[in-house]
Amino acid sequence: MIKARIVVTLKTGVLDPQGKAIESALQSFGIQDVGSVRQGKVFDVELAGSDTEQAETTLKAACEKLLANTVIENYAIEIA
Amino acid sequence: MIKARIVVTLKTGVLDPQGKAIESALQSFGIQDVGSVRQGKVFDVELAGSDTEQAETTLKAACEKLLANTVIENYAIEIA
Repeated sequence: MIKARIVVTLKTGVLDPQGKAIESALQSFGIQDVGSVRQGKVFDVELAGSDTEQAETTLKAACEKLLANTVIENYAIEIA
Repeated sequence: MIKARIVVTLKTGVLDPQGKAIESALQSFGIQDVGSVRQGKVFDVELAGSDTEQAETTLKAACEKLLANTVIENYAIEIA
């Protein structure tokens, strides 16, 4: 079995209102040092088999089709 | 300036309906190899200063107070 982690983040320049909200929430909690915050998503996936190359192809397809909106988001695949 | 990434994931054993939905969506897209999927959140944070130890303390406080629900979620802080 292969374990992989996919991290989907907004591209630079894309507005992130959720991150902005977290920023001001942190400041109102008294945590002042925090500059910018940007929020993304993480997917921990388990795949059958042991062929990491094929797993990467599968996960790329999953990202392109479903997990990431490639117009505004980047994705990174880490296979453990 | 310090850049850090916080990854918040559900604890093992906590039901993840969103992950389950992604699992079946992937299968209906013809991606069959995928076993389990669990979804989490990622926060890319920029902090003022250069004291990594203090940054870690600040980020821990941020996780405990706001970013993670420690009853059902784990968090991991990576400082770049």
